[in-house]
Order: sequence, then C-alpha cells, then structure tokens
Amino acid sequence: MTEFEQRRRSISHRLKELKVDGLLVSSPANVQYLTGFTGSNGLILLTAEESHFFTDPRYALVALTNITGKVHIAKKALLEESAALIKRKHIKRLGFEPSWMKVKEHQELEEKLSVGFRLIPAGGVVEDLRSIKSPSEILRIRKSVMINSEAYYRTMKKIKIGLREQEIAAELDFQMRVLGAEKPAFETIVATGANSALPHAHPGPKKLEANELLLVDMGATADGYTSDMTRVTFTGMPGKKTREMYDAVLEAQLAAISQVRGGVSTKKVDGAAREVLKSYSLEKAFVHSTGHGLGLEIHESPRIAKTDKTKLQTGMVITIEPGVYLEGMGGVRIEDTVLVTQTGCEVLTPTPKEFVYLA
Amino acid sequence: MTEFEQRRRSISHRLKELKVDGLLVSSPANVQYLTGFTGSNGLILLTAEESHFFTDPRYALVALTNITGKVHIAKKALLEESAALIKRKHIKRLGFEPSWMKVKEHQELEEKLSVGFRLIPAGGVVEDLRSIKSPSEILRIRKSVMINSEAYYRTMKKIKIGLREQEIAAELDFQMRVLGAEKPAFETIVATGANSALPHAHPGPKKLEANELLLVDMGATADGYTSDMTRVTFTGMPGKKTREMYDAVLEAQLAAISQVRGGVSTKKVDGAAREVLKSYSLEKAFVHSTGHGLGLEIHESPRIAKTDKTKLQTGMVITIEPGVYLEGMGGVRIEDTVLVTQTGCEVLTPTPKEFVYLA
Repeated sequence: MTEFEQRRRSISHRLKELKVDGLLVSSPANVQYLTGFTGSNGLILLTAEESHFFTDPRYALVALTNITGKVHIAKKALLEESAALIKRKHIKRLGFEPSWMKVKEHQELEEKLSVGFRLIPAGGVVEDLRSIKSPSEILRIRKSVMINSEAYYRTMKKIKIGLREQEIAAELDFQMRVLGAEKPAFETIVATGANSALPHAHPGPKKLEANELLLVDMGATADGYTSDMTRVTFTGMPGKKTREMYDAVLEAQLAAISQVRGGVSTKKVDGAAREVLKSYSLEKAFVHSTGHGLGLEIHESPRIAKTDKTKLQTGMVITIEPGVYLEGMGGVRIEDTVLVTQTGCEVLTPTPKEFVYLA
Repeated sequence: MTEFEQRRRSISHRLKELKVDGLLVSSPANVQYLTGFTGSNGLILLTAEESHFFTDPRYALVALTNITGKVHIAKKALLEESAALIKRKHIKRLGFEPSWMKVKEHQELEEKLSVGFRLIPAGGVVEDLRSIKSPSEILRIRKSVMINSEAYYRTMKKIKIGLREQEIAAELDFQMRVLGAEKPAFETIVATGANSALPHAHPGPKKLEANELLLVDMGATADGYTSDMTRVTFTGMPGKKTREMYDAVLEAQLAAISQVRGGVSTKKVDGAAREVLKSYSLEKAFVHSTGHGLGLEIHESPRIAKTDKTKLQTGMVITIEPGVYLEGMGGVRIEDTVLVTQTGCEVLTPTPKEFVYLA
C-alpha cells in the first residue's frame, strides 16, 4: 500500500465514528496529502470502502498515471460531478470541511442532492492526521530546512551595503530554487532599518544602509514540504539598545524551545517566551504568537499561542519565533523550525543564532 | 478622494439596490482593491456612509498609516470584532461574499448576532467593479507585462542544452524580481520535451535536451498586478508535425484575438480558437478554456470559455491562450495578456510569437 493509500484508509476508518457515510475533501493541501496531487483543481470523496478522486481534463494524464483508487476526469465542475456520484452511492450523511467549503458550494450541493440527504460538518479530520509527521515527511521537511539555510548562507556571503531589499529577496529566492526548492514557502521578507519593525514587511526598493538591522524571514517549499526561519543581522556595530533587544528575543526563543516536548501544552511554550520578554519590559512589543505548525502548508495546526489548548505530540513540526517590534527603531525576530520528540525537541534549523555584525 | 476611497464609495452606493445595510468584504484581493492592504488578515465592513477596516496588531502600523476610514486593530478574530460593530451599528441585513466566506465563518457570525439579523449573499459586487480596469490599474498591468517579457528575454539569452527545468524557472523568477516584481504571479512553468504535454507541469530536475520543445508559462506580480504569458520554442530544427502543431495553435490564438472587442461574448472568442483547431483535427487536444481575466489576481472574471455568457467590456484585461497537448509528443500553448478596447483590443505582451528554433 502506498503512503497515500494508507492515509486515505485511516480517514475511511474514522467515518463511522464521525457518523457519516462519506467525506468530501476539498482543501488543496488535504487533497495533496491524500493523493500527492498538486494541481489547482482536485476533490476527493472517501467512503468506508472507496476512494474517488475528481479533477479536470488539464490534469488527466498526471491523475490517471499517479493516483490510485477511482479517478474521475470531470467535464463539469468537480462538485457537480461528485454530487452525481454521491446520489448513485446513496450517501445520506456526507461529511464536509466547514473551514474550507464556501457558503456557495454548500448551497449548490444541497440543491443538487435529494431530500433526506444531509451535509455534516467534519472539519479537521485530515488536519489532525497531518499534524503528526511520518518519517518520510520529516525527511522532506529536513531537506526543505537545509535548502533554506544554505540559500540564506550563500546570500549573506554576497550582502553589500546599497543592495535593495527586493534584490536581496530575489537572490534568496533564486538560491532556494537552484538548490532544488519548488518555490519560496511564502513571500520572502527582507526588511532593513525601521522596516524591520513591521512583522510582515514586503521587500521594497529601500537600499541596505550601514548601521542598521537586516531582518530576513524565509522558507522553502521542497518536495511539497515547507520550512520557516528568521534571522536578524546588523550592518555595523549595534548600539546597546539594539543588542539588548536582540539578547532578550534570543533568550525568549531559547526559553520557549526548552519547553518543547511531547505532552506539553503549546500555551506553556508561548508563556515561556512571553515571560522572558516581560522581564525586559518588552512583552507589549511582542505582537504575535510564538509559533505554528508547518508541513505541506506554512501554517498548520497547532498554534503556539497564549489562548491555545493543544498539547504538543511527538512528530509535530513547529516554529518557535518570538519577536519584538519598536516603531521607528526596528524589530528583531528569531525563528527556527523544530521537531517535537518524546524527550524534548530537535531544532532542525542549522543556521547559527548569535547576533552577526556584518562588516 | 483616493482611488481606494472612490472604490469603496461605489460599493457603498450599491448597498441599497442590493437590499443590505452593510457589506462584509473578506476576500483578500477584494480587501486589497478597496484599501491597498496586502497583509494576510484584513476585513472590511462597508455601510452606506462608513468604511471600517479590521486587522490584527502585526499590521497596526501599516494599516493606521495608509488606510483611510475607520481602522480597527483587533485583539480577537476579525470576524468576532466585526460582529460587535455590526450589533452596535444595528445592521440587520448584512451582505457577505458566498464564494469566499467559509461555512464555518457563516455559522459563527449567525451565532454571534442577534435574532432579527440576516446574512444576505451578495457575491461578485467587488469583482464586477474589479473586472473593468482603471487607467492606473492598466498602467500597473503594463508594467507587470513588461517585466515579465524582459525577464523571459534575458533568460532565453542564457538558455543552454543541459540546464534543468527548475534552473530555468529559478532564473526566470530571479530576473522578474530583479526587474522589480514582488513575486511570480503563479508557479512558473518550464516544461521540456514530453513534459510540455502537461498543461500545468511543475518544473523538475529534467535537463533540457537537443531537439525538443521548451514551454514557458510565466507571469509577474508587480505593484500588486499580474501578467500572464506562454511561449514555446524548440531546441533544434522541429519536424513537420511539431511545426504544424505550432502553426495551428498560433492561427487559433490570432483568430481568437481578432474577435476580442467590447460587446463581444467571451464564448465567441473561445469559439474562434476552437474552430481553427477543429480544421486541423486538433480540437480534442485543446483541453482547457481560451483565457481568463487578470488583475490583482491571476484568475479573475471573465472566463473566456465555451459555456460562458459574459460580454467583453472596454477596460477588461484578459489572456488568450489556446493550447494543444499530445501525450508522449508534447504540447504547444501561446498566450498573451490583452486589453479589451471599444474597437478591438491591444495585445499588451510584446514578446514575438514566431516559432523560435534555439540553435
């Protein structure tokens, strides 16, 4: 059995417990997880016994070659074609993904299907499975992390005062691609000087100047799997306040990492980072959560956040990324990709975290 | 009044006709269109008189600096914060985007709001406005098209037998970035030899060989606006069958372009391409539609398709991209970005369309 078939089988086995006769999976990442399909138009209908995959003629060759189970090449909209099958199979209680299905799609399905048919919200079923990574997935994430760090290393060797943020970002993206990534996992952030105070800055035409912060937040998608890393350097000799800000964030990041272990609540991990920043009176400048799961998507469950109740489990892969942002002055964020183990964790990101002063 | 304020005003003026007291806009591209906001978490509530923008603290600085109207920095989920405002404003009939709002969000809103409150599907309102581009938008699309074509030109000058598909894609992406694009508008397609028969191939480790097809489908996102182009070249001297396939697709593409004019149905444009391919008995190998609108997103209305009933309007920007795919042999697609005018159209893409034989 392929890994994809195994995953579909695990979901099919849960249908009874979910009190549904079938599950419609339409989230692209979930579709990819269950079939390997990476196109833009795919839909899966799982029953206790069968797996049906729907796509359009553009992807016929790829789908018929690579995907096991029944493959339907739909001439009409996928949802419409699936509705016909749902009728034929006499599926009465159909599970769907409420965080993914649009209101319009829901209405269309209800109209197409007969009286006695019910749509049952069944969210997070595939996501739960996805949150624990298999050995082959962890291998892919390791590869993605290595490509990412190597691309950062190669680019930093070429950094010069006067380069534009967008040129640095272009070089980072180029290096990731050359090293085998399909694409950046998200829009690469290169923020210099005061721009680094924007947690999600877009790289722009601003040139890198002497004596300022350079924040890079980047990730690769390789073999479908993502990585995520943030590093901050300084072009010159930083002042005391900047060094203190960096040290506080690094201390917070290490404190959070030291809490990561299977069975620990994500809230506790988040709290560890916040507590350190509080001791520096910087807690109000930490305006986001401490981290997030990643895998096929750059943001997956769990969230590592104040209000989250998830417990970490062995095999989860998460980011730890506290940050401090001071308007006008700049920001520091330090982020690693981390694998949760039974006894603690493994920081997958190999890039050093000492504060680097670029000559 | 800024262009963003004008757009919001046009929407606000339509609320009465839509029989709603407010409209909740959550599609990221629509939010960007109405405010300029490019972050990942934004929400707009428009009433007849007011504009409210919601985002989270990560984007506080950007939002408070750049967005006019009321700006709310939400500590809770944006939808939850907006619900509180909807109550305070006594909005009873709230329009929402059914093609964008998720079933789960819809349920949460209904739970949060009081009896007597109704959610009214009001889809396509912003998209309708977006489908006709303003002069400033057309300027941005022109810039995106020029960056894209220049990046293609620079990369083609460096093409050598033995380069991997992913290396060529990396170079294309790098050149777009260096020329000022924020990012590729979609995952750049570089497909060589038989891979070109897959309309949506991912660039892989396959090396470019002598005497084969090289298909490049690429677009830039620059100043937020996209472009889209496909070109096919041959590494050597193509055989008769390949040349015939190319000529047929080019004839089909020119036939479709010759139909483009304000007032013409998109169906007619699509039909013109199909008719040419039929005369070469290639119509079954054309497995997708003839084109699509583009702008802030790479796929916007209208669709240029067999079953579509839209009429083209002056100011729409669309792609014309017929293609023919023969399994095992390869595929040819030729695609331009085209501006619809009253008397015909302007092909924005400057890259030549003769069949280029790479030495």
